[in-house]
Amino acid sequence: MVRLVVRNCSVLVVPVEGECRVDEFQDILIEDGVIVEVMPAGAIAAGTGLEEIDATGLIAVPGLVNSHTHSPMVMMRGAAEDVSIDDWFNRKIWPMEMNLTPERVKVGARLACAEMLLAGVTTFVDHYFHADQIAAAALETGLRADLAPTFFSSTGPDAREAAYEAAREIRRMGQSAANGGPPRVTASLGPHATYTVSEEDLRRTAEVARAESFRIHLHAAETEGQTKSSQERVQATPIEVLERTGVLEAGALIAHGCGIIDSDLPILARHGARTSVAACPKVYLKLAMGPTTPIKQLREAGIAVGVGTDGAAVHNTLDVWESLRLLALTQKQREQDAEWMTISDTLRHATRGGAAAAGQPDTLGAIEPGRRADLALVDLSGPHCQPVHDPRAALVYSARASDVVTVVVDGNIVVRDRHLTTANLQEILHDAKSVAHTLVDLSQGGAIQHYAPDAERNP
Amino acid sequence: MVRLVVRNCSVLVVPVEGECRVDEFQDILIEDGVIVEVMPAGAIAAGTGLEEIDATGLIAVPGLVNSHTHSPMVMMRGAAEDVSIDDWFNRKIWPMEMNLTPERVKVGARLACAEMLLAGVTTFVDHYFHADQIAAAALETGLRADLAPTFFSSTGPDAREAAYEAAREIRRMGQSAANGGPPRVTASLGPHATYTVSEEDLRRTAEVARAESFRIHLHAAETEGQTKSSQERVQATPIEVLERTGVLEAGALIAHGCGIIDSDLPILARHGARTSVAACPKVYLKLAMGPTTPIKQLREAGIAVGVGTDGAAVHNTLDVWESLRLLALTQKQREQDAEWMTISDTLRHATRGGAAAAGQPDTLGAIEPGRRADLALVDLSGPHCQPVHDPRAALVYSARASDVVTVVVDGNIVVRDRHLTTANLQEILHDAKSVAHTLVDLSQGGAIQHYAPDAERNP
Repeated sequence: MVRLVVRNCSVLVVPVEGECRVDEFQDILIEDGVIVEVMPAGAIAAGTGLEEIDATGLIAVPGLVNSHTHSPMVMMRGAAEDVSIDDWFNRKIWPMEMNLTPERVKVGARLACAEMLLAGVTTFVDHYFHADQIAAAALETGLRADLAPTFFSSTGPDAREAAYEAAREIRRMGQSAANGGPPRVTASLGPHATYTVSEEDLRRTAEVARAESFRIHLHAAETEGQTKSSQERVQATPIEVLERTGVLEAGALIAHGCGIIDSDLPILARHGARTSVAACPKVYLKLAMGPTTPIKQLREAGIAVGVGTDGAAVHNTLDVWESLRLLALTQKQREQDAEWMTISDTLRHATRGGAAAAGQPDTLGAIEPGRRADLALVDLSGPHCQPVHDPRAALVYSARASDVVTVVVDGNIVVRDRHLTTANLQEILHDAKSVAHTLVDLSQGGAIQHYAPDAERNP
Repeated sequence: MVRLVVRNCSVLVVPVEGECRVDEFQDILIEDGVIVEVMPAGAIAAGTGLEEIDATGLIAVPGLVNSHTHSPMVMMRGAAEDVSIDDWFNRKIWPMEMNLTPERVKVGARLACAEMLLAGVTTFVDHYFHADQIAAAALETGLRADLAPTFFSSTGPDAREAAYEAAREIRRMGQSAANGGPPRVTASLGPHATYTVSEEDLRRTAEVARAESFRIHLHAAETEGQTKSSQERVQATPIEVLERTGVLEAGALIAHGCGIIDSDLPILARHGARTSVAACPKVYLKLAMGPTTPIKQLREAGIAVGVGTDGAAVHNTLDVWESLRLLALTQKQREQDAEWMTISDTLRHATRGGAAAAGQPDTLGAIEPGRRADLALVDLSGPHCQPVHDPRAALVYSARASDVVTVVVDGNIVVRDRHLTTANLQEILHDAKSVAHTLVDLSQGGAIQHYAPDAERNP
């Protein structure tokens, strides 16, 4: 049995409802990757084979979940600035993605894992190409991940079936690495979006998902404009399309959902137990996408909401601290209510909400006995956090990713004293710098897809 | 003569108009606090009495300007969360400010200076009580500051005159410390706001400002609602009030200005050379204040706009990196135009715009010969910034305050390798923790003022 004790920390307790609280001077006992006890400091005796972390002065926070990202896009960070969403897709990103190779995706995924781990992100929910390479990077670096291999209808049924097969392969990789325990790397099916995947292909995806117990992770109702154009083109909102194709029945993680309208809410509520939404607020501001995700309405409908970064080609970081802060700020703005989206609710979306988005609402997202041991130890002693009248407020509104000191995923210490224990950061950075230019090279022309959510859907 | 050379850095060049650029492998020569040369690395020979900073791999950025803050409010960080703007003022902050003493303000100001310096902020433009204590903290820690002693009309003419006298005293302190050179600490007059200071007092303030060459720093047109209620109460917008009382003629820094309307623009334009606006976007989101500052319209009218944090009792940090990023994001949102508020414009607002807000448009805000030597050396080598396709984008959208390595103000190295050289951070933090509870104590009742911008103005 592998045993680890985190000594003498404060613990952020995130209940299912109501206010978060901070319990001071606690020990956390972890056995075989599971939290078995949280108790007053000193109650757990030292012993042979018991690894110890002295967390005096630090606050233990449930590991943050990046609920929606395209992790290898860190390789395009800063290469598509100050452009409209149409140009971002059609003149920058989808042409750049002609350059993707398994090796380049692997280099980007390793960099992304390093960035996220050092920032206290313990789980990421990903949607991208060559996703087996991302699985390998997560397995190597110690992150928890759910990976959806992306496909479009425009590339035909063979590519669609290959994406399903990639999901099966990732599932096998995760199970194989887990040695019979609960896998740290899991897979979902990844149709790109309601505007790039046909209803026929969504229906087929839902069948595969139900038959093989996959969830479906896709972009839908990203903007109010997409919802309106969907109603005009196919007489249904994107959410109605997801229902009539069986995607909601199978279980879906919906990225963005800013265009979810009131009439969608009862539909989502009917599938509430299997549906979650990932909100990535920095992106909606940066690409001027209009109103942000209607989280108040989704919560009233019983839908779990996580916080995500989306890809770093638009978000520029994979920093979930930044995302959760913007979630709070933009939700207060959306509702024009400074009392809404409290610090407690914000922390809950970034932890329990993320756990639901990752498909593990009952095993991740909280520091409590029985849950997987995913946590970050955060230092609030810096001059930008002091004095600390309320550590919860400090976490939401003052702390930075650089305040994360030590990170545990699945009971393993993956970051210790701000250094990765599982991989060589200098090597990761060197590899990223070496291939960065190849990814933004547009000289060969072409694009992997065309962005036109208002046009006729591709066959 | 004191000589310093910053060796082998990249330099962020922020022109008056157009795109910023980054010149690699440069040396910056500084003499007696002034930048005298920026030239290719190696061109400046070593010499006796020439201090050197090896900045290999770092980017030199003009020191950031916090264009509007209440620095000692770091002491109330996190003590007023998830409340409406009315409750924030009337149930939290203004009652808490009954506890202000010169000593507590000094403790807070020292903490604020430490936070800002370590984050690469080289100038702050402040508005608060006991401002002589803030001046002392700035002089001690090496920051550049313009300080406006706050007054309300409700506390009577003696308090008003005392605030003017405090500004004179700060001016003397700055001049005395400067030994005949240009002072690092300057003063402005600080009527609180158009809704808490009578027109008679604004008129008197404008007279003193003109007679003694002070600028006036105040809150005005903070929200659209304030503008509307001002029109109803006094048949004038807050900007029209500033004009008819002579405040604009004297020269004003207007904090927030979210409620500036189209008819205000020609008025501001007439006083464009002496008027600037400070935008603090995080605060407008957090307090659900409605639309953010109309920067596009202000720029078309020729008004300089700086970036600020406002006080940390609402902003929670004094981190101008956070503010400038939110400036870019919220401006794209306001205009629903992802091509607006480019990375170059954003960096310009945080540097040259801030210099104008500080009353020094020609001497601060750029790394170029003849300007005061205020700069920060920033490390973009972290995994959250790499690979760097565009260092300007990395500065706006990826970098964190913790990436600031070394800071120079007025030619002095005030932060070296992430440590303050001018003050003892542990002592500052200890002092802040010791008195923090005294500032949030509401047991004695009362408040320094009542927030009711829609009501009749105080006499």
